[in-house]
Amino acid sequence: MPTARSETGDPFLLTPGPLTTSPTVKRAMVHDWGSRDATFVRFNREVLEAITEIAGGAGTHVTVGMQGSGTFAVEAMLTNFVPRDGKVVILVNGAYGKRAQRICEIAGRANLVLETPEDTPPDLAALSAVLAGDPAVTHVFAVHCETTSGIQNPIAEIGRIVAKAGRRFLVDSMSAFGALPIDAREVAYDALAASSNKCLEGVPGMGFIVCRKEALVATKGNATTLVLDLHDQWQAMEKTGQWRFTPPIQVIVALHQAIQEYKAEGGQPGRLARYAGNARILLDGMRALGFRPLLSDNLQAPIIMTFHMPADPRFEFQRFYDGLKERGYVIYPGKLTVADSFRIGCIGRLEALHMRGVLGAIREMLAEMGVAHGAPAAA
Amino acid sequence: MPTARSETGDPFLLTPGPLTTSPTVKRAMVHDWGSRDATFVRFNREVLEAITEIAGGAGTHVTVGMQGSGTFAVEAMLTNFVPRDGKVVILVNGAYGKRAQRICEIAGRANLVLETPEDTPPDLAALSAVLAGDPAVTHVFAVHCETTSGIQNPIAEIGRIVAKAGRRFLVDSMSAFGALPIDAREVAYDALAASSNKCLEGVPGMGFIVCRKEALVATKGNATTLVLDLHDQWQAMEKTGQWRFTPPIQVIVALHQAIQEYKAEGGQPGRLARYAGNARILLDGMRALGFRPLLSDNLQAPIIMTFHMPADPRFEFQRFYDGLKERGYVIYPGKLTVADSFRIGCIGRLEALHMRGVLGAIREMLAEMGVAHGAPAAA
Repeated sequence: MPTARSETGDPFLLTPGPLTTSPTVKRAMVHDWGSRDATFVRFNREVLEAITEIAGGAGTHVTVGMQGSGTFAVEAMLTNFVPRDGKVVILVNGAYGKRAQRICEIAGRANLVLETPEDTPPDLAALSAVLAGDPAVTHVFAVHCETTSGIQNPIAEIGRIVAKAGRRFLVDSMSAFGALPIDAREVAYDALAASSNKCLEGVPGMGFIVCRKEALVATKGNATTLVLDLHDQWQAMEKTGQWRFTPPIQVIVALHQAIQEYKAEGGQPGRLARYAGNARILLDGMRALGFRPLLSDNLQAPIIMTFHMPADPRFEFQRFYDGLKERGYVIYPGKLTVADSFRIGCIGRLEALHMRGVLGAIREMLAEMGVAHGAPAAA
Repeated sequence: MPTARSETGDPFLLTPGPLTTSPTVKRAMVHDWGSRDATFVRFNREVLEAITEIAGGAGTHVTVGMQGSGTFAVEAMLTNFVPRDGKVVILVNGAYGKRAQRICEIAGRANLVLETPEDTPPDLAALSAVLAGDPAVTHVFAVHCETTSGIQNPIAEIGRIVAKAGRRFLVDSMSAFGALPIDAREVAYDALAASSNKCLEGVPGMGFIVCRKEALVATKGNATTLVLDLHDQWQAMEKTGQWRFTPPIQVIVALHQAIQEYKAEGGQPGRLARYAGNARILLDGMRALGFRPLLSDNLQAPIIMTFHMPADPRFEFQRFYDGLKERGYVIYPGKLTVADSFRIGCIGRLEALHMRGVLGAIREMLAEMGVAHGAPAAA
């Protein structure tokens, strides 16, 4: 098959991110703006307001941008929202939950981890029990879609349990926000962190935190660093319309363009429909080739899928990976401790034809390696 | 006069940054790369190695990148290199020295400020006296070019004093690195922070810290945050060639292109020659129009120049600023406490013709406002 290439000549990224973006998003970066430029200041305001709107938080919430990456936004969220005398329950079923714990350890924030295996949702009964039994707990942190496995955690249910117990909820919605529904009018969170380069389909370089305004006001003085001080970042933006410190201007302008394209696609329902279609094609096609997904369909987010390594000894992952990349499709290694695996993402500027394309490339590679089918060893 | 525009149709940025970049630097961003992509991994390594080389640190030093902005790099430098039981003398003659103090206060790093007015170099005798008299002091922090005024601080002399007193030196060379000479073989520093979007002429979104390797090794465990942990960031890069957390890929690729263009211009001497030429034209031209620079020529860095506001009551700064912007030249407001002023930068992808262009635009604006000359009130 011919090598597949995007309109800008690049292989397609079927990864958890950075992702394939549209040519118009990338071309929006081919300009210089000063950080006080009126057009840039307007773009910036429109980006932050649009994110609040997408979150269902207009009037009650405010979005604070954070230079860096998604993890910068998560660290800012945890260290600002959990006060020095607070205690946070961290629901862990993958690398991003573990990272949140590490952030809390370094910042000296008391925490309690409730861990389940990577293919298993959080234990909600255990959460309820902890909240009932430990009055020191002030906050609960959960990952919306854990890209370690691709599992979709039951964010709305967790939110209800946290709210019922009178605690505050912090959400890492990095790889889900904009595609999976999470509406601030329905899920009572104090803060939600995500980034420019996931389901909003911008380029990497910026995170953001959607904050319940009243809760953000109360974070004043909690920050452990200058650069990650969300209250200060918010106040400066409110007063001047400008960032405290040099913003990644081109990244923000690209996100502005990406958000126009997001709206044109029908917002969250439109984006989810495309991703869900991509996921369907991929899962069905992979199953037809004998591959077995890690997760049952009811746990699987239409974001990134984990497949068990085939049992056939002729299957060599590096050769498979390289062969797919040569054909124009970049997949992702596994990160699981529970199983030997690899991952294929379906978010970013990808359509059904790209999913069919990667399936064709996979078929070719199996044939090339003499692998009859992708089935793993019997469980 | 006709409106001046860059090749990508933008006004020229005569500011402390973000700056005007070349069209080829911006166009380098019109691609998608995965963060594990072999070409990106190579570009990233080449960028970090080139920066170490530019710093004169090959073999002895290593460059650690930091997502975010220059201030993220400065906070990472201060909080990692000054240990919990350390104490840092901060030389302040502008906003960036003050910002360093705020970083130390938030991180709980003992510090002592030696402040001089914004138009006055640091008091080196006072520094020597403090180092002789306070054995608790472990580090000294100085700003190379303080863009608050545009003053060039005597970094080499400060370095000699710090080394003679057996202390460690931390340099904020944000707006100077790559243009003003600072060679690690001559100035004994433990760390130097700068960013992608100043004299290297990349786009904003990334800072970096040139670290003396032995000193960096000793920082292990000092970090107060996960994302700004330099030792961890360095170790991960050494082991995997990859960033710990999503890097601003397009920003790094743009910096890679910018560094090729930097080398083609003859490196630091070549870049300094262009900037010095720009500064000369601007200073001579502004003096000919009656404007008075804040600094005497021996204190002035060829980076950004501060001018006193004209005394003529017909001079309105906002109208002046807007008129220049309409003509294609963006200048910068003042930030001084010692005098009412404005600033004009001469770094970024600017040549003699742009300096003559802004002088022409300034002449026009003076005429339009009926201002005979730019002279300030007699001092």
